[in-house]
Amino acid sequence: ASPITVRRLRADDDRKGFRALLSQLTTVGEGDFKRRFRAIADGPEYVYVIESACGTRVVASGTLLLERKFTRNCGTCGHIEDVVVDSNERGKDLGRVIIEALTKAAEFAGCYKVILDCSEANAGFYERCGYVRKEIQMAKYF
Amino acid sequence: ASPITVRRLRADDDRKGFRALLSQLTTVGEGDFKRRFRAIADGPEYVYVIESACGTRVVASGTLLLERKFTRNCGTCGHIEDVVVDSNERGKDLGRVIIEALTKAAEFAGCYKVILDCSEANAGFYERCGYVRKEIQMAKYF
Repeated sequence: ASPITVRRLRADDDRKGFRALLSQLTTVGEGDFKRRFRAIADGPEYVYVIESACGTRVVASGTLLLERKFTRNCGTCGHIEDVVVDSNERGKDLGRVIIEALTKAAEFAGCYKVILDCSEANAGFYERCGYVRKEIQMAKYF
Repeated sequence: ASPITVRRLRADDDRKGFRALLSQLTTVGEGDFKRRFRAIADGPEYVYVIESACGTRVVASGTLLLERKFTRNCGTCGHIEDVVVDSNERGKDLGRVIIEALTKAAEFAGCYKVILDCSEANAGFYERCGYVRKEIQMAKYF
């Protein structure tokens, strides 16, 4: 099998199904892809993707958000967001590949920790990726 | 009682005990306050504080982090972080005041939701602030 490459999101990835992939995770709707892409070109949101072997589609994605704090020696905390693997590509360990890439990116960026929120059903997967349970997530929708 | 004002963090707040306050929450250590303050002047980290009535000390603080997504019509998600009230100032509802200010700031910034992580012991407080339980938080420390 050819190696799996994780790379940063590119300007033409929406044509490769990037937001169609995200729609497997939550509501996507409209919005100007190119404008948002340019807006986050320098972070602190870093979107990573995995392409299909033939290079025509985006089959997995995840985002690392970097947060600059005043605690921990003015440290940086990584937040992993919006992790999704195409339903037709499950069972190939792509989820683990993208999480390991995002985790390494956080470490490389100097984060003292990286955190994420997930469902109870997915906790075991993240534990196998080296994560431990911490707190509970609360939300308010507008 | 005089009204309680929530305002953005200022350059001289470290002399008013800002990081001493944060040390009630977690490890603070060293780090260049002024440099970090300048780095986040334009966000996406927005630190808010409450001063003591006499204006000499910072007695409560919380941070709103804005995350630009490709989902939800290229929407924005607010993250509330590092909420702390001085242990000598508990029982004055300052926690609720700071959370309501951060929540309003998120709504004003156009967020479709705002999320936070907390301990099981604090979940009831956030429920009284209008938050609901969602997922579980996982973490990996480097």
